[in-house]
Amino acid sequence: MIVIPLIERKRDGKRLTETEWHELVAAYARGAVPDYQMAALMMAVRLNGLEPAELTALTDAMCESGTQLRFGPDVPPRVDKHSTGGVGDKVSIVLAPLMAAAGVAVPMVSGRGLAHTGGTLDKLQSIRGFRVDLSLEEAVAQVGRIGAALIGQTAEIAPADRKLYALRDATATVDAIALMAASIMSKKLAEGLNGLVLDIKRGSGAFLPDLDDGLELARIMVRLGADRGCLTVALLTAMDRPLGHACGNAIEVAESIAALRNEGPADLLEVVYRLGVEMLHVVGIEPDRQRARATLEATMATGRALNKFREIVAAQGGDPRVVDDVSLLPRAPVVKDYAATRSGYVAGVEPRRLGQAIVTMGGGRQRMEDAVDPAVGLVVHRKPGDRVERGEPVVTIHARDADGLAEGQRALGEAVQIVPEMPDSALPLISHRVTVDGVEELA
Amino acid sequence: MIVIPLIERKRDGKRLTETEWHELVAAYARGAVPDYQMAALMMAVRLNGLEPAELTALTDAMCESGTQLRFGPDVPPRVDKHSTGGVGDKVSIVLAPLMAAAGVAVPMVSGRGLAHTGGTLDKLQSIRGFRVDLSLEEAVAQVGRIGAALIGQTAEIAPADRKLYALRDATATVDAIALMAASIMSKKLAEGLNGLVLDIKRGSGAFLPDLDDGLELARIMVRLGADRGCLTVALLTAMDRPLGHACGNAIEVAESIAALRNEGPADLLEVVYRLGVEMLHVVGIEPDRQRARATLEATMATGRALNKFREIVAAQGGDPRVVDDVSLLPRAPVVKDYAATRSGYVAGVEPRRLGQAIVTMGGGRQRMEDAVDPAVGLVVHRKPGDRVERGEPVVTIHARDADGLAEGQRALGEAVQIVPEMPDSALPLISHRVTVDGVEELA
Repeated sequence: MIVIPLIERKRDGKRLTETEWHELVAAYARGAVPDYQMAALMMAVRLNGLEPAELTALTDAMCESGTQLRFGPDVPPRVDKHSTGGVGDKVSIVLAPLMAAAGVAVPMVSGRGLAHTGGTLDKLQSIRGFRVDLSLEEAVAQVGRIGAALIGQTAEIAPADRKLYALRDATATVDAIALMAASIMSKKLAEGLNGLVLDIKRGSGAFLPDLDDGLELARIMVRLGADRGCLTVALLTAMDRPLGHACGNAIEVAESIAALRNEGPADLLEVVYRLGVEMLHVVGIEPDRQRARATLEATMATGRALNKFREIVAAQGGDPRVVDDVSLLPRAPVVKDYAATRSGYVAGVEPRRLGQAIVTMGGGRQRMEDAVDPAVGLVVHRKPGDRVERGEPVVTIHARDADGLAEGQRALGEAVQIVPEMPDSALPLISHRVTVDGVEELA
Repeated sequence: MIVIPLIERKRDGKRLTETEWHELVAAYARGAVPDYQMAALMMAVRLNGLEPAELTALTDAMCESGTQLRFGPDVPPRVDKHSTGGVGDKVSIVLAPLMAAAGVAVPMVSGRGLAHTGGTLDKLQSIRGFRVDLSLEEAVAQVGRIGAALIGQTAEIAPADRKLYALRDATATVDAIALMAASIMSKKLAEGLNGLVLDIKRGSGAFLPDLDDGLELARIMVRLGADRGCLTVALLTAMDRPLGHACGNAIEVAESIAALRNEGPADLLEVVYRLGVEMLHVVGIEPDRQRARATLEATMATGRALNKFREIVAAQGGDPRVVDDVSLLPRAPVVKDYAATRSGYVAGVEPRRLGQAIVTMGGGRQRMEDAVDPAVGLVVHRKPGDRVERGEPVVTIHARDADGLAEGQRALGEAVQIVPEMPDSALPLISHRVTVDGVEELA
């Protein structure tokens, strides 16, 4: 394949055709285009941009470089949720069983912890025996049988994206919003979905803190989904503080199980319901959002969501007794409260700093090959705007040793801010909905 | 070496320090930086530019990646000429012996034919036995002994530039004027020069046809030379028509020998003298340009330049009898005139098309590994502005067979333009002088 003229065109701000993108990506995936030519082209794309038709072609080509899930005619509509990642974001663990119990099929491909954020796969693996490495055949069969599967990205899904992402990571071209969108959507579109709901985090703990960047990412992904017949909706949600209380792997599973018992926390359940409503809406199962919400609340209240989670855990080789006894989850040897250093109002619980502390304490990876300690984490009792008296616990630290405890205390000293007056309000929990028709402000 | 932050900075339009450029180039030359990271960085440089201090550091670093020529205290001032390349440009073959005979030392590192342009090394090798592959030690010794050597770039000169140029060639980043300047100057500054004169071609047959691009390249190179203590001057010369009459390897050597006998052609001799005057001026041998011109004309008229060429040919293993009998040069089996198809005035003899035809006829390379037929070429008898009658020879084709003749005739049908009225004048032969003090218009 002759690549130089293609690089020249992107260098000069011109477009490549759909066929050229397909041929280029296919040739790159099979090793027929050297990394250095792709690196030059990606930098030109990073600096000069892509036209919408090019972005669609690139996304399609990466998606088509691997296996695409196929479901039989008797399987209900498939719908997935994707989050851009946050701290304390255990939404998938609650949402997947809830939606499967509500009658849609959820073939969910999740990720590992990345930088300061946690990953659904790491959390689920704190359940003894839980397999996230199902083959695609196993996952498709499980979705057909019980309505949901929670797995990791296999080498068969969008291998061109995997190779290109690694190259971009090494050449300072990961931060292009269009390329981020193409990367995410190439994997999601391989799941054989009828609909997709995106949870785009905003605020200091998000990968894209700025609202405008989040909206741009949302708009691009919504359009890419629609172009491929996968109706896509995005909600913009707050990540200027952790979601729920628990931040860490095993303690987030415990909190997810509490949520599946309808025991809160309220912010987590609200995000779960709002995303779930969009999931029912986007595949046309329940176009009325109020009725959809009532359906989901009933599914939770009757215990069907919790039962579905028990089914999923058992189907994927995990110990289902955990669902009824969270004390079977790994527990940290050192558990100690971090107390308020003064009386006043909580002005900030900086999620990025919390996430970094959890990684340092052993609850996340500093290098790809690091093992994760599932028991490590932080439970945040007070959120921005809450009143607190000096000496009251603000956060409980779950550490594996004294060093971890000290790291937690140091981080909380930086992350927790208490002020004398009621602070300005935090970001609205759910602020915008982005659809093919445009952006709606919700809060 | 951690390269990603450096790529990020060039991506974001910021600068790298002198130390960073030196470390980066050294690490790349020894294979410690992968091609894909350098490719991304070069594309960022191509699109976002380099600050002057960065360009100096890059040039220095590439120069210092290899051997730099050292001359003893008894060797006269060293001065070289570099041309950006043209068709019929045999200036080096005349100028090197002329300047050596006039008392400066000329350690000239020349190139091969590239695209439609000829190369000094290919031309000299049409003299039986002529060695262009002298070692640097041999070249330095020859310059000390007889005042000039004409050699090719060895692997010892600026190896980082060689590696980087190959990468840029494969990643569509060769056309950045600043990087072109750095590449040329990194090699020239390795020659241990006191002064350098640049022949920047402009017009349709030049690599940079536009005057503004040529002036930018000249300004950058003049400054890079001055920064390193090598006073550099550039002349902008015309390449909207071939220089002299002969275009091709052996026939250009024959024309060069005629010029060294002071037998013209006039345009070639004028360019040779004007560049030579700048060479004497730039190293302070003769600051008065009129006296310098007189010195050079006398050197030519007395046969000392021709004698010096004979010395150089002999020193480099070539057959010196060629200098007195050009019929010893390779001769094409098929020699045929291309006649004017109508009466009128020559409006154009498109050098790019001529150069391409010579390559196709076997007188240049389509691939690096191609052998060059030294006898092939075109002798252009009429230039733009000349009157011609129908049927008169305009060009003589020197081909190796009937196919080559047909290709020459086809090319000349496209390249030679004859119009009824006297056409607008061609570009002035020598239009601008660029020095550290600025640009002077000469014509």
